[in-house]
Amino acid sequence: MDINKTLSELTLTEKAALVSGKNNWYTAKIDRLGIHPLMMTDGPSGLRKVEPGKGISDINDSVPAVCFPAASLTANSFNRDLFFQLGALIGEEARSERVSLVLGPGVNMKRTPAGGRNFEYLSEDPLLTGVLGAEYVKGVQSQNVGVAVKHFAANNRENQRFTVSSDVSERTLRELYLRAFEIIVKTANPDTLMISYNKINGTLNTQNYHLITDVLRDEWGYQGATMSDWGGVADHTAAIRAGLDLEMPGKGQPSTDEIVLAVKTGKLDEGALDNAIRRLLTIIDRRQPDANPEPYDQSKHHEAARKMADESIVLLRNTHNELPLDLAKGTTAIIGQLADKPRFQGGGSSHVNPVHLVTPLDAANQLSDHVIYQPGYDLDQLDTEPTLEAAALEAAKQADHVVVFLGYPESWESEGFDKTSLQLPDNQSELLSDLTDVNDHITVVLETGAPVEMPWVHDVNAIVETYLAGEAVGEATWDILTGAVNPSGHLAETFPVLLSDTPMSMTFDQDPNHEIYSEGIFMGYRFYNSHEMRVLYPFGYGLSYTAFEYTHLQTEIDDEKVQVTFNVTNTGERTGQAVPQLYVANHATHRPVPATELRNFAKVALKAGETKTVTFTLTRRDFSWYRTGKHMWEADSGDYELMIGASSRDTRLQQRITLTFENEPHEISENTYLNEIISDPTLMALFMKDVVTPFSDHGSTTEQQLFTVDQNGKVAILQNPLFTNMPLRALVAQGLPNQLIQTFIRHANNRE
Amino acid sequence: MDINKTLSELTLTEKAALVSGKNNWYTAKIDRLGIHPLMMTDGPSGLRKVEPGKGISDINDSVPAVCFPAASLTANSFNRDLFFQLGALIGEEARSERVSLVLGPGVNMKRTPAGGRNFEYLSEDPLLTGVLGAEYVKGVQSQNVGVAVKHFAANNRENQRFTVSSDVSERTLRELYLRAFEIIVKTANPDTLMISYNKINGTLNTQNYHLITDVLRDEWGYQGATMSDWGGVADHTAAIRAGLDLEMPGKGQPSTDEIVLAVKTGKLDEGALDNAIRRLLTIIDRRQPDANPEPYDQSKHHEAARKMADESIVLLRNTHNELPLDLAKGTTAIIGQLADKPRFQGGGSSHVNPVHLVTPLDAANQLSDHVIYQPGYDLDQLDTEPTLEAAALEAAKQADHVVVFLGYPESWESEGFDKTSLQLPDNQSELLSDLTDVNDHITVVLETGAPVEMPWVHDVNAIVETYLAGEAVGEATWDILTGAVNPSGHLAETFPVLLSDTPMSMTFDQDPNHEIYSEGIFMGYRFYNSHEMRVLYPFGYGLSYTAFEYTHLQTEIDDEKVQVTFNVTNTGERTGQAVPQLYVANHATHRPVPATELRNFAKVALKAGETKTVTFTLTRRDFSWYRTGKHMWEADSGDYELMIGASSRDTRLQQRITLTFENEPHEISENTYLNEIISDPTLMALFMKDVVTPFSDHGSTTEQQLFTVDQNGKVAILQNPLFTNMPLRALVAQGLPNQLIQTFIRHANNRE
Repeated sequence: MDINKTLSELTLTEKAALVSGKNNWYTAKIDRLGIHPLMMTDGPSGLRKVEPGKGISDINDSVPAVCFPAASLTANSFNRDLFFQLGALIGEEARSERVSLVLGPGVNMKRTPAGGRNFEYLSEDPLLTGVLGAEYVKGVQSQNVGVAVKHFAANNRENQRFTVSSDVSERTLRELYLRAFEIIVKTANPDTLMISYNKINGTLNTQNYHLITDVLRDEWGYQGATMSDWGGVADHTAAIRAGLDLEMPGKGQPSTDEIVLAVKTGKLDEGALDNAIRRLLTIIDRRQPDANPEPYDQSKHHEAARKMADESIVLLRNTHNELPLDLAKGTTAIIGQLADKPRFQGGGSSHVNPVHLVTPLDAANQLSDHVIYQPGYDLDQLDTEPTLEAAALEAAKQADHVVVFLGYPESWESEGFDKTSLQLPDNQSELLSDLTDVNDHITVVLETGAPVEMPWVHDVNAIVETYLAGEAVGEATWDILTGAVNPSGHLAETFPVLLSDTPMSMTFDQDPNHEIYSEGIFMGYRFYNSHEMRVLYPFGYGLSYTAFEYTHLQTEIDDEKVQVTFNVTNTGERTGQAVPQLYVANHATHRPVPATELRNFAKVALKAGETKTVTFTLTRRDFSWYRTGKHMWEADSGDYELMIGASSRDTRLQQRITLTFENEPHEISENTYLNEIISDPTLMALFMKDVVTPFSDHGSTTEQQLFTVDQNGKVAILQNPLFTNMPLRALVAQGLPNQLIQTFIRHANNRE
Repeated sequence: MDINKTLSELTLTEKAALVSGKNNWYTAKIDRLGIHPLMMTDGPSGLRKVEPGKGISDINDSVPAVCFPAASLTANSFNRDLFFQLGALIGEEARSERVSLVLGPGVNMKRTPAGGRNFEYLSEDPLLTGVLGAEYVKGVQSQNVGVAVKHFAANNRENQRFTVSSDVSERTLRELYLRAFEIIVKTANPDTLMISYNKINGTLNTQNYHLITDVLRDEWGYQGATMSDWGGVADHTAAIRAGLDLEMPGKGQPSTDEIVLAVKTGKLDEGALDNAIRRLLTIIDRRQPDANPEPYDQSKHHEAARKMADESIVLLRNTHNELPLDLAKGTTAIIGQLADKPRFQGGGSSHVNPVHLVTPLDAANQLSDHVIYQPGYDLDQLDTEPTLEAAALEAAKQADHVVVFLGYPESWESEGFDKTSLQLPDNQSELLSDLTDVNDHITVVLETGAPVEMPWVHDVNAIVETYLAGEAVGEATWDILTGAVNPSGHLAETFPVLLSDTPMSMTFDQDPNHEIYSEGIFMGYRFYNSHEMRVLYPFGYGLSYTAFEYTHLQTEIDDEKVQVTFNVTNTGERTGQAVPQLYVANHATHRPVPATELRNFAKVALKAGETKTVTFTLTRRDFSWYRTGKHMWEADSGDYELMIGASSRDTRLQQRITLTFENEPHEISENTYLNEIISDPTLMALFMKDVVTPFSDHGSTTEQQLFTVDQNGKVAILQNPLFTNMPLRALVAQGLPNQLIQTFIRHANNRE
């Protein structure tokens, strides 16, 4: 399509029709110009193609598709290739269903584990999110299907999400909440971004020119289109002016009329409308669906979903080598209705109608005849059902090992509202407590979209977090439990001991109009590690059935780049995968900085005894912080600590390096403090020459307060902190001649 | 003086001269109109009258005056009468020295224990600070001497204090950082306020019209004058426009010329200058010094200083009834140079040249012949001096009891810079550790301006915090140690376990330009108690040699007032004083609120076995929070918990009450959420009538998603949180007719 030619042939009414969705899932079509409608579907972890005429909440009526694990699970893989493959498979399914845009990935930060939609998101770390999210985008788009990276931006709570303002500093936005989007935009060229419901600092995101145009397009160079989240447009004209290309879903004829009127009355410049059309036509042209698409191989995709879960399930605890289990030896009791009716995906728009669900109970029965099952509790109620519990305890007494399946009910975790607790339902907690009284070999399998408080953590031998593991949940769970697969998932988020340990626990969701990001850049492990606070399980943590040793850390500094090399050795007896993580501690910057920040990671497969060398390259940006006043990234010269860890709290190797970065010199002014001058030898020499030596009011109070006279008769500055902590203008109020100070300032700013 | 007449007779040049100080300590005089100069001196805890020609840092050259305990100690008295008396005595000294204005009290909040000037301030709680500060003001002004309440406002760090911006929300300002000033202005009518150096949200306080004029004068009705902190004026014209009346100290003729030029060129309206003059003349006229003032009774004032310290020293720990000590029994070893060279006041502008210092060693020698003394360490260095330490250990071995004097060196605690640690010097820590190895009867006496980390807390029997106890430090310390006085001081600030436990530990003093108040309203105990965090000693805590029982809590609700009555009984065998504290927990408000807030307190003297009844009255404001959007205090109807405690963590009595407050009804708009409507029966009935019933698109997706049809054929709202958590405008995007919604909104806002 010749975009500009087509644009010139469109009438105003046709243009107005194009910038609103025709309905929930299609863009408008203009037959006379060959503009076909784009179909889009929900689907970060599987396709949710809704049949025409169905509403967005008819979650079970979508076309069957393979349900891959939720992002909250796959992020734990720390595996870039997995995310490319996940995107490619979903893209393949979309192509075969003639879907042009997959509405994903969801890359918002997990600011608090209470966030209602966290199960759709990846991590509390923007680098991990951005890097994995970019691979997903590349994967989908490799299949000639587009994406909608969502929800841009700072959409971190569900309650009042249509109107609440995320009140957050620009530095925090840049370093945390925009970062993953920036990485994806700059490295994966996504077709579209979905603009979120919320406001940032009082401005509705869909009407936020600074966000959509200044930052996204002008600064990051974004070439794709933008669409609203469903119902997120309040003032469509204002939204188009801000840079929003597509209102979803449309309101029909009233939407068209509104835009036509806005252009005719001069409220909306037609050039802004044309820009939106140009960007939309580019995507429409690029993502024409195949006329006769090939079907995809459902069983191959199911097997891939299983492998992704295998790579991502996290072994949290394994005392007395409780795991792996040998199902052939003795009796294993499987307790908990979630074994039979598993949580394997979240609620809301990401809900998939699975092709082939294999429950943990099904999978166990296929593996062994020595398993017995009792539901133990009723998922549909919170109170203990005595008969169910008694039968479960009876089964546990007879068994050699007990595997208890626990998790949040589905109604607790969905798009649209937040959580208020990280505790398991009462009936599940009671059951577990009673089970630990009758059997010492307890393994807990968690099926949750988010972290869980575990007051019982020391009462059980093993804990496996499967999150929402997709339709192959049963097979993958037993792959890990039996050791058919050696676990290699590492947590992409912190598990706090208590929800009240989170920094925003007193304020999250409390104000209907404002969500104040008071913790700033200290979010997730950046908070806990900076305050050396207790956590249940730290970010980056995960156990394996083998052991890894880290050795030979070497760094090479070349200009503003640092190359970091080290070895990882599998010192155990099984094949496994290590997840080395590179954290940087900034000791150079005179600004608040988190204790450590993740700057790279790898997934390394190693046979028993095998050693591999890992190399990471750090660039200036990895040492930078965002200076709000100057709207730029700044890196300071000085010391940095490089840490190679098996988690954010398990540092195996570390090295301190000194780096030099070029920066603009700071301007000297009346507000420059004396101690800043004293600490810079060049400035100090100038200050002595321009101010101290010429100062002639000898014997005065001012001289007594500020200077000492040494044996050569020359004066030096008296290091009284009361005065060294004064700016030059306050020293004038103490009696230093303003003329001398002004001369010094002039000379200081002209130095080479 | 006829102020307006005098004003009309002043030339422009004379006016310009009056709005700048003549020098560090005097205002200008205009002899021809009988305008005498006002003399002012530093002095929250004692007069610092500097002889002419001396600089502000000549801290030892002021005229001798009684050095009362620092505010950091006296605040622990929780005693209103003590503060009136303190003010009256200082006022009497000022009058006898012909001083017209005492530069105090210092009522900034102790936001972090690292704040360098905390020793001059009272508390982390604004109510305690405001109520006690007001009494001090009334006391000073009862002697026909004025005050300068300082430093207005949000001046909570010393580093870069001339230029740093306190970035703080309006709600936090109103509820915490302005609150003490508001109480003092409204109840004590102070002559002047001193405007602090810092900025608030980017605007220099001395140029902040909103702060000085809108809030202080127009809203609070302040009638007094304002002056700058010393050297705090950057642009004098802008400062006068903002409402600053007096630049201190003046810059001499250039200051006058600047103002004359500003008026002549129209940069400054002469009316604004006249307002400043009018307010200054009022104070100058009111506070003419006595021609022949009477001298004050120094020994009576010294005795008062001792009694104030007696009332305020805090007994933190007393295991095995280590205290009180009977000096007649056995030998007591006094260890620590601070017994001989005590810290009894802070550095900087509050420094007094004491009339009669009694050291703890002097006082002990007067009390007993059975005491032996060893300095143990050298205050002027941080490393252990082996000879000193060995002698101290030898003395401790021979003694029955050991009293160790520990504290921060004077150079660590002064105006002008902040602390970076709450640890004792290494040599003191080592000494204490070694002493605990040789004697089990250790009492630690702390002389510090701020909390101390105490990793050794469980190794000693007793701990007494004397803060900076004034010139009677020695007598008062032994009054408490020997039981001559029963301790009744309760902490006016939290002692955290570690400085890193404070919420701003990662950010305080880190950014030279901005101090972000990220903890917001969760400052001090409001933070620790809300997060149920560990603390070393909580706000409001203090031990006694007797015990108190709290009984018979009764509440009486009358309109928007609550009267709270309860009994306190001394159940021990000694006369003592209890400090009952009333905290309120707000369960009514759908906004972030601290777990508890102090709303009243009392000091109750009780003989053994005696019972007294205490009555507190709570008003609407005590249940209110500040609504930033509407710029008003709002109190919500609902449940409140009233707690009577012996500290903020030691609740003795509690009662839940339900209160009803009148408030404006919330406006209903397109942004009103469906669940807000559902929760209000009146609104819900209207919504059913206006929207649900008339909705006619039966069988549509919209109906299926939003409504159910009950057996009567009428529709009801489907309680799917995905939709109930949508605002009305998003429901329009889901298919509800906009016309019905608009009708509902109109009706809803017109309801009675």
